[in-house]
Amino acid sequence: MAGGPHSGRAGKGRIVSVMTSGKGGYREAGVDLASADDALRRVKELVASTYTPGVLKGLGAFGGLFELPGDIEHPVLVASTDGVGTKTMVATRQRAYAGIGRDLVDHCVNDILVQGARPLFFLDYVASSRLEPAVTAAVVEGVAAACRANGAALLGGEMAEMPGVYREGELDVVGTVVGIVERRHVVDGASVREGDVLLGLASGGLQTNGFSLARHVLGDALDEPFGDGTVADALLAPHRSFLPAVAPLLLAGDLVKGMAHITGGGLPGNVPRSLPDGLGAVVHRGSWQEPAIFALLRERGALDEDEMARVFNLGVGFVLVVAPERVVQARDLCPEPLATIGHVEAGSGVRFG
Amino acid sequence: MAGGPHSGRAGKGRIVSVMTSGKGGYREAGVDLASADDALRRVKELVASTYTPGVLKGLGAFGGLFELPGDIEHPVLVASTDGVGTKTMVATRQRAYAGIGRDLVDHCVNDILVQGARPLFFLDYVASSRLEPAVTAAVVEGVAAACRANGAALLGGEMAEMPGVYREGELDVVGTVVGIVERRHVVDGASVREGDVLLGLASGGLQTNGFSLARHVLGDALDEPFGDGTVADALLAPHRSFLPAVAPLLLAGDLVKGMAHITGGGLPGNVPRSLPDGLGAVVHRGSWQEPAIFALLRERGALDEDEMARVFNLGVGFVLVVAPERVVQARDLCPEPLATIGHVEAGSGVRFG
Repeated sequence: MAGGPHSGRAGKGRIVSVMTSGKGGYREAGVDLASADDALRRVKELVASTYTPGVLKGLGAFGGLFELPGDIEHPVLVASTDGVGTKTMVATRQRAYAGIGRDLVDHCVNDILVQGARPLFFLDYVASSRLEPAVTAAVVEGVAAACRANGAALLGGEMAEMPGVYREGELDVVGTVVGIVERRHVVDGASVREGDVLLGLASGGLQTNGFSLARHVLGDALDEPFGDGTVADALLAPHRSFLPAVAPLLLAGDLVKGMAHITGGGLPGNVPRSLPDGLGAVVHRGSWQEPAIFALLRERGALDEDEMARVFNLGVGFVLVVAPERVVQARDLCPEPLATIGHVEAGSGVRFG
Repeated sequence: MAGGPHSGRAGKGRIVSVMTSGKGGYREAGVDLASADDALRRVKELVASTYTPGVLKGLGAFGGLFELPGDIEHPVLVASTDGVGTKTMVATRQRAYAGIGRDLVDHCVNDILVQGARPLFFLDYVASSRLEPAVTAAVVEGVAAACRANGAALLGGEMAEMPGVYREGELDVVGTVVGIVERRHVVDGASVREGDVLLGLASGGLQTNGFSLARHVLGDALDEPFGDGTVADALLAPHRSFLPAVAPLLLAGDLVKGMAHITGGGLPGNVPRSLPDGLGAVVHRGSWQEPAIFALLRERGALDEDEMARVFNLGVGFVLVVAPERVVQARDLCPEPLATIGHVEAGSGVRFG
């Protein structure tokens, strides 16, 4: 399509909009058409690999149709949009693009999991000053892999070249997940009582929060050896999906009273969101394994404990609130270790003790 | 919350993640905390103004719950994610932020309307090198106004400060709409036949496509007087929602056989997507009113007709395909003029004649 614009589609609802110039040709207008075509081809297969039975493939050429599962009496949709913050800047430096695709999906899946929802489908947006096909395909490869792992169909997406908006070589990724939960199974913290126990799931690293501060502290140390790799590798540790760990507990009905995804704001910023008014939590430092990257950040940044706890998850990626007499059941059902990190008390907020 | 990070919420699911620095304070880490708080407060009211009965407000402090309407037998969800391309660059120059918020919603609403879906809810993402509260609030003001006009709840969103990723002063906006349609009412073009008529709805301007080329051609002429304002004003003409014009026709059952939203790729790139294999369309140039901005682009850019048609909508923002004997009914039901711009013929693609 020399001389014209290109609006290709890769999978339902995915449109690459690339404008061309009548005056000076593609390059002058800041767009690489062949690259976009190349990216489209590679992305198309990845998208198709995520399709679940809900995806309606035969209907029309426009985007994204999903038939609701019929086995839910009072379906409530839960949706969330998010990015991965400036983790993208570490990823672009390391050319570790698939990782941020996975991070994007897992972050969003966790954000709706806290209310008891399982994901139905996902849509992504990848934008950069210039779409390198290898980069775009790598991001979508990660998105698609995480969608498959979470049982979410990659229903649509957009790839946008915006020279002039993004800095050269930088990119942003934005994801939206839509999930479903039976209304009476929405987890909203209403049944949480004083004395209930906080159980923590391990994050394995920063997930996708605290990167502005982490880059500020460790920006010059990214290539230093650290653990089995480098500091950059440690920073890029995946944002885990907690769906596989939590789903078996949700099937047990009223076992899980509240949940918190530990993102920006850390434990103090997120645990209170799972508690009713009038209740707070005490969290016991040292009751879980803290990944080594946090000690490095603490030391190099001369960060105090309060700041550490409010910026980083410190190793706890997700928190479940259960009654004390059901902790054993929770541990039995959960496919991975659950650390008892604290309990609910009268008050508000999070107190470390 | 001096000294700590901020993860505030404005409305369900909206999180502002702002990281702070233990080393050098907020400004040094590239973040303005007071501004973020300010933006949050203003945004919160705007979000609440969009709530429809489907929004579940009482359940939990995490984001975005929406109860499905109970009056649909076989509900199909239709979803789309999109941005507004480099229209953002003209908007930031003119500080016309509310407009791109509206454009974002209307664009997405039209993208699912082509399959017969009405919007349930919308989520937005606004990112910039620095979040000026007035700017963010203005964007969300436009988003909220368009959500109200389209009957969509603004269910969630994210505002991200990413210094280092975005160029100074530039921003990107990304929207996701989720809509619903009864399965047997999905409009998929399957019933389109040779001889069916193409009816066009007026776009009023570029909508959100062709801005890379438009800026290339008219970048130095933005302040020139044009029509009742300037060239920039003409370029920023709103992306219309075609929902009010099309909804009455959809209620008539099988009247509308196919629809196309004329975005990147123009009429040749989008009309064929509403047609079954083996059918194409002939479009009659001059059968509709072309806004004056297109003549200016044609002349200043020395663009040929083929390129014009493949980059710009040329004044037709949305196309309906109906049987010839039902054109009168369509005109009767539609609250605005429908131009007969062509018809369906054997073949493929779009032929101008």
